[in-house]
Amino acid sequence: MDFFEATINTKNIFSGKILKLRVDEVKLPNGKVSTREIVEHPGAVAIVPIDDDENVIMIKQYRKPVEEVLLEIPAGKLEKNEDIKTCAQRELLEETGFKAEKLLHIIDFYTTPGFSNEKMSLFLGQNLKKAQGKADEDEFIKIEKIPLSKALKMVHNGEIKDAKTIVGLFITYMYLKGEF
Amino acid sequence: MDFFEATINTKNIFSGKILKLRVDEVKLPNGKVSTREIVEHPGAVAIVPIDDDENVIMIKQYRKPVEEVLLEIPAGKLEKNEDIKTCAQRELLEETGFKAEKLLHIIDFYTTPGFSNEKMSLFLGQNLKKAQGKADEDEFIKIEKIPLSKALKMVHNGEIKDAKTIVGLFITYMYLKGEF
Repeated sequence: MDFFEATINTKNIFSGKILKLRVDEVKLPNGKVSTREIVEHPGAVAIVPIDDDENVIMIKQYRKPVEEVLLEIPAGKLEKNEDIKTCAQRELLEETGFKAEKLLHIIDFYTTPGFSNEKMSLFLGQNLKKAQGKADEDEFIKIEKIPLSKALKMVHNGEIKDAKTIVGLFITYMYLKGEF
Repeated sequence: MDFFEATINTKNIFSGKILKLRVDEVKLPNGKVSTREIVEHPGAVAIVPIDDDENVIMIKQYRKPVEEVLLEIPAGKLEKNEDIKTCAQRELLEETGFKAEKLLHIIDFYTTPGFSNEKMSLFLGQNLKKAQGKADEDEFIKIEKIPLSKALKMVHNGEIKDAKTIVGLFITYMYLKGEF
């Protein structure tokens, strides 16, 4: 079975602070030619910070693309040459003021492989300690501590609607049950 | 608490077959000015087709942005003015040849609210019937029937790495347990 799409031509459209956009002309397995609009992303991490009472430290922030305030787990983009674990601790500290003494890398996943190469590494953060956080002054964030069981209900009723957060909460649920 | 980012200026960069890209100049809550690179997407649906023996009908397809063949649940973009349920049945038929006599809309979520407005509506498809599928000749897809319990293990071991698929599988697991 050969699914491969060979690149015939690449056209770079945009190179921004965070995203790049290109259009690839590709040869399909049946010989036809098509185009693929591709968003290049530097990659990211997300952390589920969970305390000893199974509360998740979550953040509320305004998301311009959807024009809504969303409740999410802490996350952020990889800086150049930054390793994922360093990035996870940095984002956790910047966004919540906590450090995780136990930081477990659980899975990697693609957020939107149909149009972007963004890869996200998911961590579980435990043994949380309040740290001298140097909060980023241009991040407008409200921290909320929510029991995991309640957060799962908020996925169900539509109050939590960010994909990486939903993935993180379910994986934490399975992990704590010993099924993951 | 005011998180709102007012748009000062919008620059349209690209308008393609599927995606649009724009850069918004925004006023942050502290009065500073920043930019947001935003990918506009038409919205999509994803379906977890599950048979009476708790097998999930999944598809394998090549994803150019990540240059990999991925195992995913059926999904696709909304056509202009198409309602989400019609889209879900259409994509299920085009990609798998099945019709779901019972199609349940479970949740909506944002795939990447940090850089895109893509909203995805997730359905559970049950009472599956083989239909006279008019398969799309430019879709190169292999169908695989995988027990739900095995699919969850494949999330754990990294063989399934598409975010919407992970969300769909966990939600189906919770639903069948009566917890969702």
